[in-house]
Amino acid sequence: MINQYQSLVHQNIPLTEYMEWSIQKLAPSDISTLTQLTPNINVHGTAFAGSIYAAAMATGWTLLKCWNDHANYETELVAAEADIKYFRPVISDFECSAQLNKTHESYSKLINRLNENRSCAIKLPVEVTCNSELCAILKITFVFKC
Amino acid sequence: MINQYQSLVHQNIPLTEYMEWSIQKLAPSDISTLTQLTPNINVHGTAFAGSIYAAAMATGWTLLKCWNDHANYETELVAAEADIKYFRPVISDFECSAQLNKTHESYSKLINRLNENRSCAIKLPVEVTCNSELCAILKITFVFKC
Repeated sequence: MINQYQSLVHQNIPLTEYMEWSIQKLAPSDISTLTQLTPNINVHGTAFAGSIYAAAMATGWTLLKCWNDHANYETELVAAEADIKYFRPVISDFECSAQLNKTHESYSKLINRLNENRSCAIKLPVEVTCNSELCAILKITFVFKC
Repeated sequence: MINQYQSLVHQNIPLTEYMEWSIQKLAPSDISTLTQLTPNINVHGTAFAGSIYAAAMATGWTLLKCWNDHANYETELVAAEADIKYFRPVISDFECSAQLNKTHESYSKLINRLNENRSCAIKLPVEVTCNSELCAILKITFVFKC
């Protein structure tokens, strides 16, 4: 499954291949990705804020695309808005991880609306870590468009 | 001046060169950049949300770096947090533009603090347009670190 989604993302979002973004772990409600520092450096020799965001966005999108495909919904998945906080510089290759919280009421709402073929938004947090330290959190509002 | 900052950004943030991000207009308080769609497409054939953010972030950073250099401040310029709203798909090459509002009180505060060699944050909005339509707004909180 990793190879399938890795190919899907690299072929359709070529920026992720240039960034050397790769999927390490993938299940319909859990993802972890690794991004190399070298193609993503900034003037300080740390990761460019734009790269951190793009890696985390690709990670969140891939998780929800995988979840959607496994649930057999016919939707278009788009980002509506997002906010990111940078806590410390990313000084090495970095990990992005996200989980879909199935106990949250927004998850039940999502299922109910998609089952009625109605569009629905959901907010997904993606954590960015390097050397086991939390460096940034991106919270993305995705919309499943029916 | 455009060539100088274009080279600075492309050489130090290689992602921007891959993205075919280029400066169209640059003054210490005004910037406009153009980014090609092709290297930045997503699964829908429109611009990837991560690319839109990265292009806008590079635009905002370049404006404030240029302003800082012209004012001769010795600071390190970093992004602390940001939020972005996507209004419509970016379906072609796209422009990012930003202006430093010198009449806003945050500008006076910035000058005062930097003149005392103290770090200061400032919020900068960057507009993303394609075909003259507003597609996204990124609001970035930058910190000038003394």
